[in-house]
Amino acid sequence: MFRTHTCGQLRLQDIATEVTLAGWVQTVRKFGSITFVDLRDRYGITQLLFGEELTIQLDTTPLGREFVVQVKGTVVERSNKNLALPTGEIEIAVGSFTILNSSAVPPFTIQDDTDGGDDLRMRYRYLDLRRGVVKRNIELRYAVNRATREYLHLQGFMDIETPFLIKSTPEGARDFVVPSRMNAGQFYALPQSPQTFKQLLMVSGYDRYYQIVKCFRDEDLRADRQPEFTQIDCEMAFVEQEDILTMFEGLIKFIFKQVKGIDYAETVERMTWEDAMWNYGIDKPDIRFGMKVANLKVPSTVYVDKQDSLKASPLAETSGFGVFDNAETVIAISVPGAAEYTRKQIDELTDWVKRPQVGMQGLVNIKYNADGTLKSSVDKFFNEEKLKAIAAYADAKPGELILILAGAEERTRKAISDLRLELGERLGLRKKEEFKLLWVLDFPLFEYDEEGNRWVARHHPFTSPKPTQISDMINNNPLIENASEYLKHPYANIKANAYDMVLNGNEIGGGSIRIFQRELQEKMFAALGMSKEEAQHKFGFLLGAFEYGAPPHGGIAFGFDRLCAILGGSESIRDFIAFPKNNSGRDVMLDAPASIDDKQLEELSIKLDLK
Amino acid sequence: MFRTHTCGQLRLQDIATEVTLAGWVQTVRKFGSITFVDLRDRYGITQLLFGEELTIQLDTTPLGREFVVQVKGTVVERSNKNLALPTGEIEIAVGSFTILNSSAVPPFTIQDDTDGGDDLRMRYRYLDLRRGVVKRNIELRYAVNRATREYLHLQGFMDIETPFLIKSTPEGARDFVVPSRMNAGQFYALPQSPQTFKQLLMVSGYDRYYQIVKCFRDEDLRADRQPEFTQIDCEMAFVEQEDILTMFEGLIKFIFKQVKGIDYAETVERMTWEDAMWNYGIDKPDIRFGMKVANLKVPSTVYVDKQDSLKASPLAETSGFGVFDNAETVIAISVPGAAEYTRKQIDELTDWVKRPQVGMQGLVNIKYNADGTLKSSVDKFFNEEKLKAIAAYADAKPGELILILAGAEERTRKAISDLRLELGERLGLRKKEEFKLLWVLDFPLFEYDEEGNRWVARHHPFTSPKPTQISDMINNNPLIENASEYLKHPYANIKANAYDMVLNGNEIGGGSIRIFQRELQEKMFAALGMSKEEAQHKFGFLLGAFEYGAPPHGGIAFGFDRLCAILGGSESIRDFIAFPKNNSGRDVMLDAPASIDDKQLEELSIKLDLK
Repeated sequence: MFRTHTCGQLRLQDIATEVTLAGWVQTVRKFGSITFVDLRDRYGITQLLFGEELTIQLDTTPLGREFVVQVKGTVVERSNKNLALPTGEIEIAVGSFTILNSSAVPPFTIQDDTDGGDDLRMRYRYLDLRRGVVKRNIELRYAVNRATREYLHLQGFMDIETPFLIKSTPEGARDFVVPSRMNAGQFYALPQSPQTFKQLLMVSGYDRYYQIVKCFRDEDLRADRQPEFTQIDCEMAFVEQEDILTMFEGLIKFIFKQVKGIDYAETVERMTWEDAMWNYGIDKPDIRFGMKVANLKVPSTVYVDKQDSLKASPLAETSGFGVFDNAETVIAISVPGAAEYTRKQIDELTDWVKRPQVGMQGLVNIKYNADGTLKSSVDKFFNEEKLKAIAAYADAKPGELILILAGAEERTRKAISDLRLELGERLGLRKKEEFKLLWVLDFPLFEYDEEGNRWVARHHPFTSPKPTQISDMINNNPLIENASEYLKHPYANIKANAYDMVLNGNEIGGGSIRIFQRELQEKMFAALGMSKEEAQHKFGFLLGAFEYGAPPHGGIAFGFDRLCAILGGSESIRDFIAFPKNNSGRDVMLDAPASIDDKQLEELSIKLDLK
Repeated sequence: MFRTHTCGQLRLQDIATEVTLAGWVQTVRKFGSITFVDLRDRYGITQLLFGEELTIQLDTTPLGREFVVQVKGTVVERSNKNLALPTGEIEIAVGSFTILNSSAVPPFTIQDDTDGGDDLRMRYRYLDLRRGVVKRNIELRYAVNRATREYLHLQGFMDIETPFLIKSTPEGARDFVVPSRMNAGQFYALPQSPQTFKQLLMVSGYDRYYQIVKCFRDEDLRADRQPEFTQIDCEMAFVEQEDILTMFEGLIKFIFKQVKGIDYAETVERMTWEDAMWNYGIDKPDIRFGMKVANLKVPSTVYVDKQDSLKASPLAETSGFGVFDNAETVIAISVPGAAEYTRKQIDELTDWVKRPQVGMQGLVNIKYNADGTLKSSVDKFFNEEKLKAIAAYADAKPGELILILAGAEERTRKAISDLRLELGERLGLRKKEEFKLLWVLDFPLFEYDEEGNRWVARHHPFTSPKPTQISDMINNNPLIENASEYLKHPYANIKANAYDMVLNGNEIGGGSIRIFQRELQEKMFAALGMSKEEAQHKFGFLLGAFEYGAPPHGGIAFGFDRLCAILGGSESIRDFIAFPKNNSGRDVMLDAPASIDDKQLEELSIKLDLK
């Protein structure tokens, strides 16, 4: 070893010990004839004291920032203690030193608050990783990894590796593919998830499986997506939904405790997908704060269970206000303490909802003044009585500002959710160090694919429908005759045995109870418009496996990168990945992807086909 | 849950408990009016007793092998106990049962001794995985995984994930590549190992890194190779070779203890590469037994350190026997207790070394009889005195049979090693449950690549040369003028700071102390015939990193699949991989690789180029 101790190790009780340290030069401070150097490694920082003789030596062989140095010396008590550092009561009286490696001047400062921009830091990621703030993220990631493995092991799960070179069966996202040299003209695919393998392991009787595993999706990358990402992937046999919910809220609570020291004692809230959409406009509500929305008007074919409560809406009948009357959906939200908002503040909110990312036409407001009077931007169409009815329906209190959006169902619902989150942020209701878990249950089984005018699996094709709705799936033709009225198709209302875990408004995991009968699985493929031949070609192995005694089973997968990011108080997963890619899927440090040799192409029996 | 207990859980103390079990039907045995069913799950087997009424019910709804069944009943004491089973003292008096899923008749028997051939079992791998013998392998693999993580964590290592979509830099084996849709005409590569990333992590100050990680090599598969395989990949900063050896023999000893219950108390033997080749003919000798070989003649340019001892060889001068005189290398091995071998036995051994896999022309033998007389197949050329000299040089004892091979250096040395192992096997010296570790040190830095008539890195281009031999590398032109005399080139004798860990004659791990200075790394690339531009294009990021304070570092990687196989007493890694590929790199269960859609090809900007 080049050292006897690390730079985070020495304390007062080590005084007078002869030690050897090695690490990086963080700072050099010369005071007259002596020099102080902060030496850094993964474990901490220790102050080195170079006396007069060595300081003269430093004149000829100077130590620059990030030089790698080995020093031999004696631990001595500091006169000027720094109690903010664990090693701050001692320093090393250096006897001799060796420069192990020099360093060019780094392109940015290696400090928590760096002057380096994003691109620069990514190009020199090996230097960026030295920064304390990044290192703590990577350490947190390892702690989450450890806690996950510990919990799952204690619960009887086995880590079983599944293959990376598999078969391309694109359903939803695109596969990355790998040309096979030994099988000319054929390709492997990289797994989007080990879904079918973990199900096969249940068929094989492994009972409880897990893996912390890389997955791959060749998607157009949105702001915070990576082409390769990591999942905590789990599956259990002989379970019902309740067993999975209990097991995995246990996992997340265990991680909270181990990694953050948080005792999450409360019961994890549960909510159906319909209730989430109805009350928050979104399937992953942030429930750290209230501010539920009020549905004044929705299309009659969705939220079938809610139609009764709609009858009480002040907009149940024509209002005379065209914007509302012509809209598919009208939703309100009441903002506490905002009745006093100025014209300017309201204009600013109106601009906010009109931004292309939100995409609304405008924002109606009703001020519910503290004195009980009401004043709105639509006084022309609604008298005080009507306004009062709306306020009552929206459960608004005096002093609140009621904001109302109107438009097409999906866009308007998303907009009211965005607005709610924005207001929550502005009102300081989304506290970074508060963690609130939520199960969202009973997701729709299908989702409408506009491009193909067809049904796709919302979770994946292996998710089981609610038993009472299997007949709705089997006995209805999946064909959508009128694309604009797809919500009227019976498939739109079939619910799945599927669940998501939501943390502070982020989906951190999702799963389902699976289909485990060949016949039902075949009917599901058919419902998704897959021919018998196609189903056999893509998933013959799974259908085959279901013939030989497949047990009931279900599972879940957590987005490991995102879970770490949220626990680390960040919204960006990139900060929690050692070597991430940018938004074009490039690794700018490696400069990958890159062109390859013609010889390589030839061996793989492919050629380029550039437009 | 579909069960209250597993099939491996219930004991005498559970008598009279009402339980629900779920699992697979292993056997059904009808005895008159009652029926016994063995119910199996991951945890064990429990006997079920179906009374008269239920046995009648079984006539209409029979239970076949591998059916999935849920039963409710009471734990009762067995009259006919089976003490070989942990649950063998009890059985379940079944009150009611539900068939959760039926099963077709499996294509082979789900038993340790199956009637299924290799192909059939691979096609139905999900059924093969149900067999106890395969399940125990997968469980052993998980135990090795656990022990590895535990030890490395205790030693301060951090699991840090490195990317899978990287840059193609083929050096040695071929890369698998992945066309990038978003960067038309460009390709990612799948990592052959995380080598450069773990070195970058050392530059970044992470100090101790590990990962249990998939690696990919697109090689023509030899008998027991897989295109994707798993490594225990480790790296440490501020270490010398000695630190690595100590740390990682500790790891393997910890695994022995945790997984096999073996206290490996002995010191792990160490041997230089030269000594291994000299004494055993191979760089991964099985030292569970002796039988060192005797070098009667070797080319003068190799084993430079051994030339002195060669002077004592009876073949130091021309012998008059053309086969020896014309051979580059002559090596002998003495076989204990084999002086009595019959002509037939010796002919059989001669045929064995003449097989194409060994490829020798013949086998000379000298019988060293118990009475001290000698008799050889070359009496014509060697008188008794000469034979005695050979026997003495080969350290043979009376009663031993001396076998001598002659031919070209590399082939002959490999052949004598193969012969030694074969004899060791036949003599029962290679005991399955005996484990013998060995470090082989000081490997050659370079290896001769016949096809390209050039030097390639034996380990990889990041391995450091022995400090005293750096000048040999820098000051000699790598060009090989006369291909047949490559062993005379100074590069042939440069040794590296590289080490392999050998277990029972298998290389289970290998590593090196790395180059950490940009200048030396550049000289290494040049020695390998890489132009400055090529080095910059392929490894610019690493050369760049070395400019900013790279610490001294080194590491090792273990072949996880092989380690598990050896610990499991098998020579085949496939048995220890849940979903392996066959020798053509195919997954016969998935039927992958496979052709992909034209649309996929088009999106990737490639087309097929079939001959």
